[in-house]
Amino acid sequence: MLKGVSSVACVGGGVIGGGWIARFLLSGLNVRVYDPHPEAKRIVGEVLSNADRAYGLLTMAPLPPRGTLTFCTTLQDAVADADWIQESVPERLDLKKRVLADIDAAARPEALIGSSTSGLLPSDLQTGLTRPERLFVAHPYNPVYLLPLVELVGGRSTAPETLVNAKAILESIGMKGVVIDKEIEAFVGDRLLEALWREALWLIKDGICDTETLDDVIRYSFGLRWAQMGLFETYRIAGGEAGMRHFLGQFGPCLSLPWTKLTDVVDLDEALIERIGVQSDSQAAGRSIRDLERIRDENLVGILHALQAGDAGAGWGAGKLLTDFEQKLWSRATPPTIDLEAATPLRLIDTRVNAAWVDYNGHMTEHRYLQVFGDTTDALLRLIGVDMAYIEQGHSYYTVETHLRHLGEAKLGQSLYTTLQILSYDSKRLHFFTHIYDLATQCVIATAEQMLLHVDMVSGRTCPAADEVLARLAPLAQRHAVIATPEGAGRHVGQKARQ
Amino acid sequence: MLKGVSSVACVGGGVIGGGWIARFLLSGLNVRVYDPHPEAKRIVGEVLSNADRAYGLLTMAPLPPRGTLTFCTTLQDAVADADWIQESVPERLDLKKRVLADIDAAARPEALIGSSTSGLLPSDLQTGLTRPERLFVAHPYNPVYLLPLVELVGGRSTAPETLVNAKAILESIGMKGVVIDKEIEAFVGDRLLEALWREALWLIKDGICDTETLDDVIRYSFGLRWAQMGLFETYRIAGGEAGMRHFLGQFGPCLSLPWTKLTDVVDLDEALIERIGVQSDSQAAGRSIRDLERIRDENLVGILHALQAGDAGAGWGAGKLLTDFEQKLWSRATPPTIDLEAATPLRLIDTRVNAAWVDYNGHMTEHRYLQVFGDTTDALLRLIGVDMAYIEQGHSYYTVETHLRHLGEAKLGQSLYTTLQILSYDSKRLHFFTHIYDLATQCVIATAEQMLLHVDMVSGRTCPAADEVLARLAPLAQRHAVIATPEGAGRHVGQKARQ
Repeated sequence: MLKGVSSVACVGGGVIGGGWIARFLLSGLNVRVYDPHPEAKRIVGEVLSNADRAYGLLTMAPLPPRGTLTFCTTLQDAVADADWIQESVPERLDLKKRVLADIDAAARPEALIGSSTSGLLPSDLQTGLTRPERLFVAHPYNPVYLLPLVELVGGRSTAPETLVNAKAILESIGMKGVVIDKEIEAFVGDRLLEALWREALWLIKDGICDTETLDDVIRYSFGLRWAQMGLFETYRIAGGEAGMRHFLGQFGPCLSLPWTKLTDVVDLDEALIERIGVQSDSQAAGRSIRDLERIRDENLVGILHALQAGDAGAGWGAGKLLTDFEQKLWSRATPPTIDLEAATPLRLIDTRVNAAWVDYNGHMTEHRYLQVFGDTTDALLRLIGVDMAYIEQGHSYYTVETHLRHLGEAKLGQSLYTTLQILSYDSKRLHFFTHIYDLATQCVIATAEQMLLHVDMVSGRTCPAADEVLARLAPLAQRHAVIATPEGAGRHVGQKARQ
Repeated sequence: MLKGVSSVACVGGGVIGGGWIARFLLSGLNVRVYDPHPEAKRIVGEVLSNADRAYGLLTMAPLPPRGTLTFCTTLQDAVADADWIQESVPERLDLKKRVLADIDAAARPEALIGSSTSGLLPSDLQTGLTRPERLFVAHPYNPVYLLPLVELVGGRSTAPETLVNAKAILESIGMKGVVIDKEIEAFVGDRLLEALWREALWLIKDGICDTETLDDVIRYSFGLRWAQMGLFETYRIAGGEAGMRHFLGQFGPCLSLPWTKLTDVVDLDEALIERIGVQSDSQAAGRSIRDLERIRDENLVGILHALQAGDAGAGWGAGKLLTDFEQKLWSRATPPTIDLEAATPLRLIDTRVNAAWVDYNGHMTEHRYLQVFGDTTDALLRLIGVDMAYIEQGHSYYTVETHLRHLGEAKLGQSLYTTLQILSYDSKRLHFFTHIYDLATQCVIATAEQMLLHVDMVSGRTCPAADEVLARLAPLAQRHAVIATPEGAGRHVGQKARQ
C-alpha cells in the first residue's frame, strides 16, 4: 500500500499501457485493465514477461508481493474503485477526450487521472470534464518498467496538489516525476527528440550518412554522456573554469550559421521510408525485436547499476534514484517468511544469474559467487537486527575469513537460492556455512564457510555486538546446533574429501 | 608502434588538443606539441592527469609504455618527423587555413593531417595546400581520452586511402572512426546536437522548464537508451513487430505539427545567458568543474564496463569496442617483466580500486577481492600458456576451492598489487597462494589459497594439462618450493593463528 494508492486502473494496454501495468504490478498494486483490442492480453503478457526478467536483474531488494492483474470488460468496471487511473489510448484528441470523459464519470471523485499522451495539451484534454482538477499528463518513456522518467504537466484547471500527489506516488514506485512549468505541445522530452529526429531524417535523406553511422555517432559519443548528465551540465564541464556564461557567449554565434535544415519539414515519402527500412534491416543484422529488447533491457540494467556506483558509491542520476528506491523497499519489506523455529538452515536469498555476472561463455564468473554469498550474509545480518540504522550507529560485522568450494556451474538466467546454517558464535564472532543451490535441480553449486567479527567501525577494532543482536542470534544458533555439521565445514584447501 | 604510426604531433593543446595528446601518449606514441598559449602546459597537464586516472579505472589490460611528451617552440619542430599531425586550434577558417598551410609545408610528404574542427568543411580547409590529399577532418568528442567516437570527413581532394588509414590507426588506439559519406558543415554529431540545443534554448527562454529539469528529462529517459543504441535502432524496437516501415508511416505526420520553434534562431542575449548561468549554478550545487569531471569520467567508465557485459557477455557498442581493444592490448603486450629465475613469489597484477568496486562507505566490497585474485590467476595462466588460443581448443583450469582472509581494507583509488606462490601441482591440479598488498604501505590486505583443476570444457571432466603447459609450470614450481610456506596456508576457517 503506497501513500494512499492501493489500486490502479489502466485504460489502454499497448506497449506504453503495458509498461505502466508492469510497473504498478511489480510495485504491489492491484491493476484493473480495460482495453477492447483483441490482442490486448497477449501484448500486456509480453511486456510483463520482459519486465519480470528485467526486474529480476535490476534489484535484489525485496519487492512487495505482486499485485493482482484483472482484465475488465467495461471501462466503468475497471476504473470504479481505482485511486490512480492511467489513460494510454491512441494519440487522437477526440478519442482521448471521449475516453477521459468516461473515466471522469465512472471514477471515484478523489481518484487521480493521468494521461500518457506524448503531445496533446492537458488543458485541451480536461475541457468538459466534471472534475478537471484531477486530470494531468503523466508522460513516460519506453520501456516504462525500466526508464524512470515521467513528465508531469498540468493544464489550466489542474489543481497544484494533483501534481504534488502524482510526483510522490511515482517516487514510491521508483519513478522520477518531473513537473514541467508550462504546458506546450510535446512537453520537453519529445520536443528535444523531435528536433533531433527531424535533423536525422534530413541527414539520411541527403545521403550524408546511413542509419547505422548515425546511431554510432550517438552511442559512441554524446549518448554515453547523456546517460548520466544532461545537456547543460555536460556543457558546463565543457566550458571549464571560465564558466557557463563565458561558454554561452562563445557558443551563441554558431547558432546563426546556416547549418541545419530545420526550417524545412522532411517529406517522409515512400522512397525515404524504404531507404531507412533497408538500412535499419541491415543494421539489425538479423536480430529480432525480442532479441533487441532483451539486449536493450540488459544494457539499461547494467547502466543503472554502473550509475549506482557513481559519485564514489553515493549513486548518481538514475542510479541514485534506484538506490533510494531500494532503501525504501528494504525499509518497508515485511520480514522474510522464515521459520525461525525450525531446526533447518535458513533460506535467505533467491536470485537469478545476471547478464553482468557472466563471462563470454555465459558462465557466472568466480567473484560473483562470493557476491551471492555476501548478499546472503547481509540478509542474515538484517534478520538479527544489523540493519542500516545499526550500521549508521558505527557498528557492523566484517568478514575476516571465507572458504569457498565450487561444486557445479551457474549459467546466465539460472535461478539460485541460498541457505545458511550458523555453526558457532560468541559476543564478537559469528561463524556460519552457506550453500548455493540450483533452483531447478536442487543441486549444490557452491558452498562457503565464513567467519565474521563484530567491529567498531571508527576504531576498526572488534567489540561485542549489541545485546539485542545477540538475543536474536542465540535462539537461531541453538536450533542450528542440532543440525549435522555440513559436509565441507572445517576443511582447508586441498584436503581430501571425507569417505 | 602502431600500424605505421610511431610519432604524432599535436598543434593546439586546449581541452580537445589535450585529450588527443592523452589518447596518443597512453597508446605508446611519442607526441610533440606546439601551442604558443602561455597556459598550454598547465592545461595539457590537467587533462593528462584526468586521463591517467580514468584509464587506471578503465582497463586492466597491459598498456604499452607511455610515449614521450615534448613541448616544441616552433610548429616546424613539432611536425617535421610526425606520422600523424592533429590540428586543434580555435574554430576560425582563416586561422586554421594558415596553420594547416604551415603544417603542410613542414610535414613529411606521407604524413596524415587531421583537423579537429567541429564544423568547417574539409574542402575549404584543404584549398591551397601542396598535398591536400592527406588532409581530413578527425572530429572527436570531449573527453577525448574516454569517448571513442571520431567523425572522419574527407574534402574534394582527400584521397580515399587517407580515410582508410586514419580509421585503422584510430582503431589501433581504441577509438571508433566513422566515415561520413558527404561533407557538410558540422557533419553528423554536431548537426544533431545543434538541433537539440536550439530547441533546449527555446524551452529555457520560454520558461517551460529550467536547466535542471531539462537535464533530468534527458538523463532519466532517452539518455539511458542512447548510451547503447542510437536513434534508429531504438525506434526499430519501439515500432515492434509491425516493423520499421510501419513505424515511420505512423511517425511521419507528427513532423508537420507546429510543435517546435526550430524555424527561429534563439537570441542568446545577456538576459538568457544570465538565466541559464543562474540555473546551471544552482544545478551544480557547489560542485567544482574538477568534481564534475571526476564524476563524469567515473560514470563513463562504469557505463563502458556495463556495456562490456552487454549481449550476454559478448559486449555491446562502446563496450564491445573496449573489449576488442583490450584483446589487442593483451595480444601485443610484451611478456611481463617477471623474473622467472628468482625464488620469490611472482608479482602479477597492479591495479587500483575502481569506483564500481566500493560500497557507500568507499570500501572495496567483499567479492571484488575475489575479482582481484581471479585476475591474478588469469595472469598466471597466461604465463604458463593457458591463453585465449588454449581455451578455444577446449581446455582450461577451473577454480574448485578458495580460502580467503581479510587482513586490511582497500578503499576507493587505492593502488594494489598481487604476488603468487605455487604450493604444489601435478598434471591435473594447481595449488597456489596469493597476497594482495597495498602499494603505498606494502601491508598485506588479503590472502587467498586456491586449488584449480585442469578440465576438458566439453565433457566437464578433469584431464591432464598439455605438456607445454606443464613444462612451463615445472621450473616455476621448483623455484617456489624453496620459499617458506606462507603464513595462512593450509588453514581452515576459524583456526587459531600460529604463535
